[in-house]
Amino acid sequence: MSNFLFIIPAFGIVGLIAMAIKSAWVKKQDAGDAKMQELAGYIADGAMAFLKAEWKVLTYFAIIAAILLGWSGTLGNESSPFIAVSFLIGAVLSAFAGYLGMKIATKSNVRTTQAARTSLAHALKVSFTGGSVMGIGVAGLAILGLGSLFIVLIKIFVPEGSAVNGLDMKRAIEVLAGFSLGAESIALFARVGGGIYTKAADVGADLVGKVEAGIPEDDVRNPATIADNVGDNVGDVAGMGADLFGSYVATILATMVLGQEIDASTDKFGGLSPILLPMLIAGLGLLFSIVGTWFVRIKNETDSVQNALNIGNWSSIVLTAVASYFAVTYLLPEKLVHRGTEFTSINVFLAIILGLVVGALMSMITEYYTAMGKRPVLSIIKQSGTGHATNIIGGLSVGMESTVLPIIVLAAGIMGSHALAGLYGVAIAASGMMATTAMQLAIDAFGPIADNAGGIAEMSQLPEEVRHRTDNLDAVGNTTAATGKGFAIASAALTSLALFAAFVGVSGISAIDIYKAPVLSGLFVGGMIPFIFSSLAIAAVGRAAMDMVNEVRRQFREIPGIMEYKAKPEYEKCVAISTKASIREMIAPGAIALLAPVIVGFAFGAEVLGGMLAGVTVSGVLMGMFQSNAGGAWDNAKKSFEKGVEINGQKYFKKSEPHKASVTGDTVGDPFKDTSGPSMNILIKLTSIVALIIAPHLPGKPAASAEVNENAKVKTEIVTPVSTEATEVK
Amino acid sequence: MSNFLFIIPAFGIVGLIAMAIKSAWVKKQDAGDAKMQELAGYIADGAMAFLKAEWKVLTYFAIIAAILLGWSGTLGNESSPFIAVSFLIGAVLSAFAGYLGMKIATKSNVRTTQAARTSLAHALKVSFTGGSVMGIGVAGLAILGLGSLFIVLIKIFVPEGSAVNGLDMKRAIEVLAGFSLGAESIALFARVGGGIYTKAADVGADLVGKVEAGIPEDDVRNPATIADNVGDNVGDVAGMGADLFGSYVATILATMVLGQEIDASTDKFGGLSPILLPMLIAGLGLLFSIVGTWFVRIKNETDSVQNALNIGNWSSIVLTAVASYFAVTYLLPEKLVHRGTEFTSINVFLAIILGLVVGALMSMITEYYTAMGKRPVLSIIKQSGTGHATNIIGGLSVGMESTVLPIIVLAAGIMGSHALAGLYGVAIAASGMMATTAMQLAIDAFGPIADNAGGIAEMSQLPEEVRHRTDNLDAVGNTTAATGKGFAIASAALTSLALFAAFVGVSGISAIDIYKAPVLSGLFVGGMIPFIFSSLAIAAVGRAAMDMVNEVRRQFREIPGIMEYKAKPEYEKCVAISTKASIREMIAPGAIALLAPVIVGFAFGAEVLGGMLAGVTVSGVLMGMFQSNAGGAWDNAKKSFEKGVEINGQKYFKKSEPHKASVTGDTVGDPFKDTSGPSMNILIKLTSIVALIIAPHLPGKPAASAEVNENAKVKTEIVTPVSTEATEVK
Repeated sequence: MSNFLFIIPAFGIVGLIAMAIKSAWVKKQDAGDAKMQELAGYIADGAMAFLKAEWKVLTYFAIIAAILLGWSGTLGNESSPFIAVSFLIGAVLSAFAGYLGMKIATKSNVRTTQAARTSLAHALKVSFTGGSVMGIGVAGLAILGLGSLFIVLIKIFVPEGSAVNGLDMKRAIEVLAGFSLGAESIALFARVGGGIYTKAADVGADLVGKVEAGIPEDDVRNPATIADNVGDNVGDVAGMGADLFGSYVATILATMVLGQEIDASTDKFGGLSPILLPMLIAGLGLLFSIVGTWFVRIKNETDSVQNALNIGNWSSIVLTAVASYFAVTYLLPEKLVHRGTEFTSINVFLAIILGLVVGALMSMITEYYTAMGKRPVLSIIKQSGTGHATNIIGGLSVGMESTVLPIIVLAAGIMGSHALAGLYGVAIAASGMMATTAMQLAIDAFGPIADNAGGIAEMSQLPEEVRHRTDNLDAVGNTTAATGKGFAIASAALTSLALFAAFVGVSGISAIDIYKAPVLSGLFVGGMIPFIFSSLAIAAVGRAAMDMVNEVRRQFREIPGIMEYKAKPEYEKCVAISTKASIREMIAPGAIALLAPVIVGFAFGAEVLGGMLAGVTVSGVLMGMFQSNAGGAWDNAKKSFEKGVEINGQKYFKKSEPHKASVTGDTVGDPFKDTSGPSMNILIKLTSIVALIIAPHLPGKPAASAEVNENAKVKTEIVTPVSTEATEVK
Repeated sequence: MSNFLFIIPAFGIVGLIAMAIKSAWVKKQDAGDAKMQELAGYIADGAMAFLKAEWKVLTYFAIIAAILLGWSGTLGNESSPFIAVSFLIGAVLSAFAGYLGMKIATKSNVRTTQAARTSLAHALKVSFTGGSVMGIGVAGLAILGLGSLFIVLIKIFVPEGSAVNGLDMKRAIEVLAGFSLGAESIALFARVGGGIYTKAADVGADLVGKVEAGIPEDDVRNPATIADNVGDNVGDVAGMGADLFGSYVATILATMVLGQEIDASTDKFGGLSPILLPMLIAGLGLLFSIVGTWFVRIKNETDSVQNALNIGNWSSIVLTAVASYFAVTYLLPEKLVHRGTEFTSINVFLAIILGLVVGALMSMITEYYTAMGKRPVLSIIKQSGTGHATNIIGGLSVGMESTVLPIIVLAAGIMGSHALAGLYGVAIAASGMMATTAMQLAIDAFGPIADNAGGIAEMSQLPEEVRHRTDNLDAVGNTTAATGKGFAIASAALTSLALFAAFVGVSGISAIDIYKAPVLSGLFVGGMIPFIFSSLAIAAVGRAAMDMVNEVRRQFREIPGIMEYKAKPEYEKCVAISTKASIREMIAPGAIALLAPVIVGFAFGAEVLGGMLAGVTVSGVLMGMFQSNAGGAWDNAKKSFEKGVEINGQKYFKKSEPHKASVTGDTVGDPFKDTSGPSMNILIKLTSIVALIIAPHLPGKPAASAEVNENAKVKTEIVTPVSTEATEVK
């Protein structure tokens, strides 16, 4: 075993140390007056209550799943019962990543509010440092966990002298896949549960508070306002933390699985280099994300927050890209062959760059479709002029349209990275894209912290200028949230393709031929899964929001003096409604994602399951983009009314009829963009990971009697008499 | 050539005679008073004006397409320039089918109104006979056209003694595919253009008339009301007529293409039987549809119209099923082999029955999701209680959920019919399902006729009871429209699969392997096409509706006396807006459907195009069901308020807040269910037909360097040492 392996967990430890320093700094900041601290305390307690309730359910799930996995590991010699341990470590670390994010977010929110009383620069520093703690912590945990578990597994399963591309190493990585399964399944429940929680509270609070009672957002008189602010922490922070932890791990793992098939025995690391590369790049990305956080700063009230974030983001991306050139040329031998495709190490580097470009393009396209002042959002504003219905039609149309360019970029990225370095190229492109996850997550998590800070400012009735500063941060957070989603879905698509390829290898089939009727049926069923998943998620939000509306209406009616600030609303009742609903409603979609591949795989075999995976991936990517972008566009169409918009020559502001129509769109978009849309990423990766885990146990026979197309056979023979040879050489 | 061939056009001629008799009967009926005739005249003129404008554009398109096709036919010996003639015949007949339907519909509408002054039974008879004229006429034209063109093509291309499954016959059928391409491309434009027309007028009329001015639907004072009624004729009648004409032809053709590959030289028809069978079944279906129309009758005012239609429908289905048993056993030899799969003639019969069962199940599931009083619609009603946004969330959720059962039924149908009789089984199942198209279309077309009759009654201010009778018919029409759509999408899916299989055969590839990166990219791009198509279609409706709203507002403002019935609105201005918008906006979606397969096919080869087709089909079926069912459910949720609904123990009626929310849902659903949703059927078939037509000219090489999966190869060899042999024998 190469000693170089130990460098991987070392990166993780560096990350965790950086996290601890930043975390200590945040905690040292002033937490404001007693009223602010009281409100922040409610939010922190509510968030913790949700996490505890969620963990209780997930503990049962994890134990049962671990037992099943352990049992399945005894069935063949391609896996091992130890996979149950991997699974549990992944699950615990994923949950811990969410906890970490939530804990620091509920400390940073009130400190950001307090900082906003002095300056925008300080408020940005506190909120962004809070976000960085989460980002760096999540990435550090992932690398430390994955890296050290891999070392342990090699010790256990791979005897000295065993070939890297042999069965022993294959088995070690199959067991390591359990780690990813654990991480991703917890992520799914956290994302869906958190998404339902936050949007039920948000929609419920808005519908009665803003629309019926006419009080502003985050008003302390609104019984659902604490639940709404808790939601930001459990959905947008803890849920997202677990989500990106899972994505990060899945991407690295998929590349390792494919890398294991490469014969790189001429390298300096006993042939380990194609497996090491994704982990090393992740480590470098973490390091340069820490460096990038130093550049995120502003000096004056009028400096652009977005620019500061962009500088931090781009510096970590560029530094990582440069470093990965040296990593690739240092690690990899000059020529590699993967499944018959030959390529050079420079091609691998170019695939990484291609991944970075695809990610950047996806973010830019997403921004175009969701940003204020651009054609898509303007068209929705215009359609708000003729009422609720045309606003909705406009948003749905924008969402559907927004799939076109990303899909073309993605298809080109798949073809390009594949042409560069085969399927390993596709996987390493995804790894490159995900390398700076720590920075992405810091930028993502800063948004909800700022949002919360604004909420606390409003509830504590602090001066206008405080709210103005947090609003500035929050607006930037909305844009970064949208672009982050574009980035996440692109990486999920590439990762799924890599997992898909890994699945084909492990299951022992040689093609997934949709010309066969059963495989095509699998494709149909797979395509339908994102629809039922989305349906369950948004219906859950709709139902929970209705309960919330009825509870808030009840409190306004039955508790006299709320409106005059004389009586305190029963915040905890609203918190309980969101908590209960989200825990209850996350089960069904989660079960579908986990069970569908198992059922299809064992009933119809590996090739039909492959068809299903392709269906889930394509339909999931499309539905994810459609829903996230429609939601983002509706949100910003509504926000545009704050400064006033012009429709057919007339100016409209808040509370006008067109504004009311735009609020409807925003409310419909809420579950789209924060519950079902972002869950699609996890759904497509999770189904692929489940397939990969069960692959060794599946019936190996081809899906159906292969149709013999006589015409085709004759023609092919005539045209390419040496086709087999040619293929292998290429 | 077997003389038996001539029986096919004979069926068509019988159909056209039956149509002429029914048409003469309708024209003999009383057309009511001068006022009614004046209004009916406006509607007929508006509809004709639209058709003329549409035809003008389509003539250019048809000529250019025919020239390109004719030129492409000179390139190889697998096609012929004669394909341009086939194409033009198909295009003209498709346009004529739409014209026929529209013509009789604009005669039947006012006569139904007049009949409704005497009794419900008579009103049903007039409106349903009008629908039958269209149904029987469309099917008759299709069979006559396809059957006689086939005879001509055999004369031209297939010398006496040439083997049926040889190249000559293959070429004849490839040329025949031009007929289907012509029919389907006109259908696409007619459906999309008509769909935009009708919904722009409908949404525009409702938003200002019902919501702002507070006048009832179809009020004569509403300037958009004539356009709205014209829309029923050009969208729901002419558009649907062209649509089903195209589906019908495509299904029969796909089965013929696959049948041509079967060696049936032991039959009594020189081996033609597998090609003849789908045409014969269509002929029998037409015959028994005519018989079925005799059973559609009621006696008293209280008799169930739905029951009468059901009896007619089921008798034609059962009679056709029984007759097809004799057709199959008479025509086919006992054993058949298609692409290596062996099956008996009884299996073919069972596949037909399976097709009928799948169609019936799809209709039932669709009815469940869209009917009043069932769980899905009730859930939307409940969610209307908390406002516009929750109503929309509820409808979207129901629409997405409604894809689950149909997809499972469809997947089971594909696997079942494939297990019975290979890919020929899948195709013949679709043919069985489509056999009674004449009856389906009669039932479908009766709805808009009744809707129009109600409009004329309202505009002519006839007594309440007249409108009450037409409303009764219209309500049944809404249900049949929804179930008809479920049926149509199922048949489109099966047809596409058959076309897909035909494409594989003609293009000479032997598999469509989505494990290859370029093919998977094709799948992604294909999956995106229904999204952009839907986006364009619904955005077009949104824009045109806005123009309509502004025009109606202008007329109410600028023409004094409209509200007091003193001044006549400028109906023709609204008609012109819808006409212009629909013609302009149908181009882009049409171009995407036609050009995307051509570009992908020639740029990346047949296998990537195959991936794209699969993507279009899966995503198109899902989006079609999602949109059609969401729209149907929203519509009936709104309708439920007419009789009053209970939400949380309180009763709500029209004009209540929850009712307003339900109107928003209905308006959003309008373009979903009548523009983009039903266009998905045509989209998926049209892309497949285009692929089939260009297949002989595509680069034949496999999509990419086939990946060699070493593990898989080894494993397969060990497990199934005789796999190749086994496959071919099975």
